[in-house]
Amino acid sequence: MTDISKLGEFGLIHRLTKDIEPKNTSTKYGVGDDCAVLHYPQKEVLVTSDMLMEGIHFDLTYIDMRTLGYKSAMVNISDIFAMNGTPHQILVSIALGKRFKVEDLDEFYAGLREACAKWDIDVVGGDTTSSRTGLAISITCIGEAASEDVVYRNGAKETDLICVSGDLGASYMGLQILEREKAVYYSQIEEYNKKVRDAQAANDEAKLAALRAQRQTVEDFQPDFAGKEYLLDRQLKPEARGDIVDELRKANIKPTAMIDISDGLSSELLHICNQSHCGCRVYEKEIPIDYQTAVAAEQFNMNLTTCALNGGEDYELLFTVPIGDHEKIKNIKGIRQIGYITKESLGCMLSTRDDNEFQLEAQGWNPIRDEK
Amino acid sequence: MTDISKLGEFGLIHRLTKDIEPKNTSTKYGVGDDCAVLHYPQKEVLVTSDMLMEGIHFDLTYIDMRTLGYKSAMVNISDIFAMNGTPHQILVSIALGKRFKVEDLDEFYAGLREACAKWDIDVVGGDTTSSRTGLAISITCIGEAASEDVVYRNGAKETDLICVSGDLGASYMGLQILEREKAVYYSQIEEYNKKVRDAQAANDEAKLAALRAQRQTVEDFQPDFAGKEYLLDRQLKPEARGDIVDELRKANIKPTAMIDISDGLSSELLHICNQSHCGCRVYEKEIPIDYQTAVAAEQFNMNLTTCALNGGEDYELLFTVPIGDHEKIKNIKGIRQIGYITKESLGCMLSTRDDNEFQLEAQGWNPIRDEK
Repeated sequence: MTDISKLGEFGLIHRLTKDIEPKNTSTKYGVGDDCAVLHYPQKEVLVTSDMLMEGIHFDLTYIDMRTLGYKSAMVNISDIFAMNGTPHQILVSIALGKRFKVEDLDEFYAGLREACAKWDIDVVGGDTTSSRTGLAISITCIGEAASEDVVYRNGAKETDLICVSGDLGASYMGLQILEREKAVYYSQIEEYNKKVRDAQAANDEAKLAALRAQRQTVEDFQPDFAGKEYLLDRQLKPEARGDIVDELRKANIKPTAMIDISDGLSSELLHICNQSHCGCRVYEKEIPIDYQTAVAAEQFNMNLTTCALNGGEDYELLFTVPIGDHEKIKNIKGIRQIGYITKESLGCMLSTRDDNEFQLEAQGWNPIRDEK
Repeated sequence: MTDISKLGEFGLIHRLTKDIEPKNTSTKYGVGDDCAVLHYPQKEVLVTSDMLMEGIHFDLTYIDMRTLGYKSAMVNISDIFAMNGTPHQILVSIALGKRFKVEDLDEFYAGLREACAKWDIDVVGGDTTSSRTGLAISITCIGEAASEDVVYRNGAKETDLICVSGDLGASYMGLQILEREKAVYYSQIEEYNKKVRDAQAANDEAKLAALRAQRQTVEDFQPDFAGKEYLLDRQLKPEARGDIVDELRKANIKPTAMIDISDGLSSELLHICNQSHCGCRVYEKEIPIDYQTAVAAEQFNMNLTTCALNGGEDYELLFTVPIGDHEKIKNIKGIRQIGYITKESLGCMLSTRDDNEFQLEAQGWNPIRDEK
């Protein structure tokens, strides 16, 4: 493994960016100067920026650097799609502590570029620097949309249908599984260490020898992920739903409001309703949920609907369309109509399977509140 | 002081951005959706992104949150000017540990917006989140320039004059002074604590009482900054040189290459020469240095030219112009001609006051190499 200090800042940037070939006509100049130079004469420029902090947004005990690079890019790309736009450029800033090596950065960039390649996005700049402790990542994604195509959060109207792509809650259940396996691993290590301490205290050489022989087995802990692959993928390697944006465009449907689901369906629906000055009614039975999510919720003894409403990190699209588009929407695979927009005075309501109703609340994943 | 968790992420964003009124016609939509929406139909879009990490790029024992906000914005704005552009928008991402309060963020934003107001820049987005430990800041600045006006690093030609704005090395000397006063403060605290420990060990109650009476005096340490105000200002509150960009435009001068000096004159000159495939000759006696910088270098027993060449964080503009512009440049206040561009084979040379010559080397401030 190579120390980053060996390459220096400029050597490192060269290594990471030397074979980048811009694919977009809007990219006039990428990495290598004080700024990137972009060309957007016909359309609006969309810009979004997100920060991901180690120990808050990700845990390197269960995400590797390549997957982290992929996810960091994807969650930003998702914001461009959520405006009904097309992503074209990305800027990547990363600050690393001393424990990271050049090869770690290679992996991070490989994942990032894999995500960018999926949507023909050019890496045009950023910053590579040090951190005293953890890893910090900041991504800026730039895209375009014709002025008349941009979809904001504030355009939902009474009687509009509320639609959601894919299924919800899987990413959150994936996270629960990762956290559980991590806890199991650490408790096994702790148990082993306690046995060693006891044997040492008792001066029991035979026991110590036996424990030493077990050591590798304890360290080679294999988490139990069988049958949970989909949930883990949803948590670790989310996909931005540009395919849905394409499908809507092909079907000649322009959403009246749209947002990507990063903080949970409830929280995002409230954003749309607040900004559009309207209410909504959502049907519990229409919320799309994968069977693996349901099985995991059962195992964890969690309320499935709560997971789907508040789980977060789904990166699916939540949008509203005029009621007249009902038939057109019905024919698009992977989109579910989950309710409709109402007058503001009616509030934001969930109709449950047993015909009760509850007010929707934003209990979404909130990194500021979550910090212990 | 108010805990950030009391407001939550959305409450906090609202508090920080509620009275932001876009000033630029290119800002179609700012904070409040998945992306900012910008409108750049006539010109090229310039984008730059920088990350600032606590303990690496700044030390909160000697920069306050307001000044930090100001500096964070300014150093990014500087990159837009370095392309001969005009800055218009900024996105601010910030990750904070638990010790930070809402009022700290208010201060940071106040400084940031003061810097933005100076150049009519709109705050259009970003991210506010938590950090396990230190403060992390990432800023993206967006601006514009007509295609024919963009100045890259790679356009310098043989015989071009090398020019620099303002003076160099002051920011670096400011940092030395701050570090020295910090060391003095900590050594006084340490000395005081040692006396207390000794008195406690000796059970000397009278001595302990006397020490307790001194305590406030030790804590109220006043650093010795008299006559050093300029140097501290240069380090803590740098100014992006948009005024120089304006002056050049008014004088009808378009630089052939330009860069802002963040890593020291040597390092930046080498960037221009490498990318322009040329050499250079710079005259030591022409390097602009303020008298306070000279006095401080003397006090610290440092080589003044080395400070000016390698100090960094000056945020002055380094640029090249055709030799025919010599007379026009001469008449602009605050610009110094320090040498000229040569053939690549002649290398990058410094002519000293005593007619020696040295090869320029990039010993600039390198956050990756600097980390201990």
